[in-house]
Amino acid sequence: MTDVCVLGAGLIGGSLLRVLGPDRAFGWNRSTPGAEAATAAGFHVSTDLADTLRRAAQTDALVVVGVPLPALGAVLDAVAEHAPGIALTDVISVKRPVLDAVRERGLGARFVGGHPMAGTADSGWAATNPDLFRGATWLVAADDDADPLTWSRVARMAADCGSRVVSSTSADHDVAVARISHLGHVVAEAVAAAGARGGDLALTLAAGSFRDGTRVAGTAPDLVRAICEPNRHALVAVLDECLADLMSARDALADEGTLGPLVDEGHRARRAYEAAQAARSDSAARSDSAVSVMPGAPGWIAELRAAGAAGLEVRPSG
Amino acid sequence: MTDVCVLGAGLIGGSLLRVLGPDRAFGWNRSTPGAEAATAAGFHVSTDLADTLRRAAQTDALVVVGVPLPALGAVLDAVAEHAPGIALTDVISVKRPVLDAVRERGLGARFVGGHPMAGTADSGWAATNPDLFRGATWLVAADDDADPLTWSRVARMAADCGSRVVSSTSADHDVAVARISHLGHVVAEAVAAAGARGGDLALTLAAGSFRDGTRVAGTAPDLVRAICEPNRHALVAVLDECLADLMSARDALADEGTLGPLVDEGHRARRAYEAAQAARSDSAARSDSAVSVMPGAPGWIAELRAAGAAGLEVRPSG
Repeated sequence: MTDVCVLGAGLIGGSLLRVLGPDRAFGWNRSTPGAEAATAAGFHVSTDLADTLRRAAQTDALVVVGVPLPALGAVLDAVAEHAPGIALTDVISVKRPVLDAVRERGLGARFVGGHPMAGTADSGWAATNPDLFRGATWLVAADDDADPLTWSRVARMAADCGSRVVSSTSADHDVAVARISHLGHVVAEAVAAAGARGGDLALTLAAGSFRDGTRVAGTAPDLVRAICEPNRHALVAVLDECLADLMSARDALADEGTLGPLVDEGHRARRAYEAAQAARSDSAARSDSAVSVMPGAPGWIAELRAAGAAGLEVRPSG
Repeated sequence: MTDVCVLGAGLIGGSLLRVLGPDRAFGWNRSTPGAEAATAAGFHVSTDLADTLRRAAQTDALVVVGVPLPALGAVLDAVAEHAPGIALTDVISVKRPVLDAVRERGLGARFVGGHPMAGTADSGWAATNPDLFRGATWLVAADDDADPLTWSRVARMAADCGSRVVSSTSADHDVAVARISHLGHVVAEAVAAAGARGGDLALTLAAGSFRDGTRVAGTAPDLVRAICEPNRHALVAVLDECLADLMSARDALADEGTLGPLVDEGHRARRAYEAAQAARSDSAARSDSAVSVMPGAPGWIAELRAAGAAGLEVRPSG
């Protein structure tokens, strides 16, 4: 059954095509070279968006929007014109702006946002990898009035990609990723810049901690901006929090010669992260620890959110 | 020839013992369990500091101070009492405070500071590894009036450990490591803390960028403080620089929706770091690119500093 239509055959969308396979997924790509690369690999990837969307509507495919956020509006305009009743999800790294754009166009009834927490510093079809999503967490949104059938389809597709599904509101997702991803991007840029300003001596003394701490500064600047800037409200808030912590440590160091409580808090935080990762590995080994939720049953959205707040995987039942 | 005496058999000192071997190195350790572990591994490691230093003086061993900075004063007091004319180096991560402490005790004539840029989040004899220094950069200080013979002994020992020797003043070293190591430690604590404050949802969404960006927050808090706090002057200055960058990005994001120039600068900086690493690998492959300097020849210290400022390896000749 050809049931998934992927719009945008870049790193994420292209990897999704590859893991689902050409019998189950087809798609569209804006640029001809990208579409040709996907076609050469055996996929039906067109550069005709209207035609692709009409085909999706005919087969009631699940449309997965995999374009960068700046291109989202134009793609959604085409969806509204050519496939307005289609089941819709996305793989964009910020969820609230996507939800707003979808609702503005009256496409919300069968929309459930998504975000696979996977990626590399590379982009484009050449970087695609059918194992990209294996073991990753895939956020499937649990917003008010979410369509149960679409939610199930998105969650099952994520599970088919080898991902574990975690759910939350779009707003909670955006705050969480500001904390665990976008802040780290901005900070890595600043740490890299401070290192390079030390010249060749500093760069030759740089060892493993600099290599790992600045890795994401190797991401293309346009991609960093496309990931972080749409989440500005959540990111400004967590930047303020981080700045306050760093300022306190700086003042304590200058005034008293000690970094203050930040070092202990940061260490406890890292241990909490490691414990969460270990618990997740144990759960995966047991494979019985996901919370089963029946989409559409009374209270199902609250159940999804409660599981997500506890960091637990969810699975559609029934 | 038993020619190296290591004071402190922890991660760095213990690894140094192991790479040099018991025929060439002996040592001292404050704690009995650590000394016993080293002894069980075939090394002569005593808990009697005075006796160990007298033995070093008798054989004119090179004494390597491998204790944490807070323990340095007591160890140097013992050196001044029991082996005042000994050749002396250290492996402590900050150089200017060590140099000051050495000179205060009149031990500067045969002292050349050192810092192998290697380590792990673990500590103690159990964490030691004879390959710890292989491929690492080992800073051998080029301060005014450095003793040429001691400089050569330290540089040769570092080379025997598989390290590449780079030279600079102690003060320049401390500014450089504030940029490429200590800043990263403080920032990683703040990023880890911001992530954990997002609760289980945030921690379960955390992927590779959070894992790598907060890795050094897993270092024991006492060790982080022992590494960073003695370098307070250089670290406060680079923290101020980093805070200014982050504040500008934060304000641009809040006011204009863009992160401003930081993303481009950070990306260029990371590329410069990667280029420096690649050039270093190429040099290692050619093995002919180190700058030869004859210790004690006219202008030798200036030559060492110039090579270090260019990020180049140096080798003692003659």
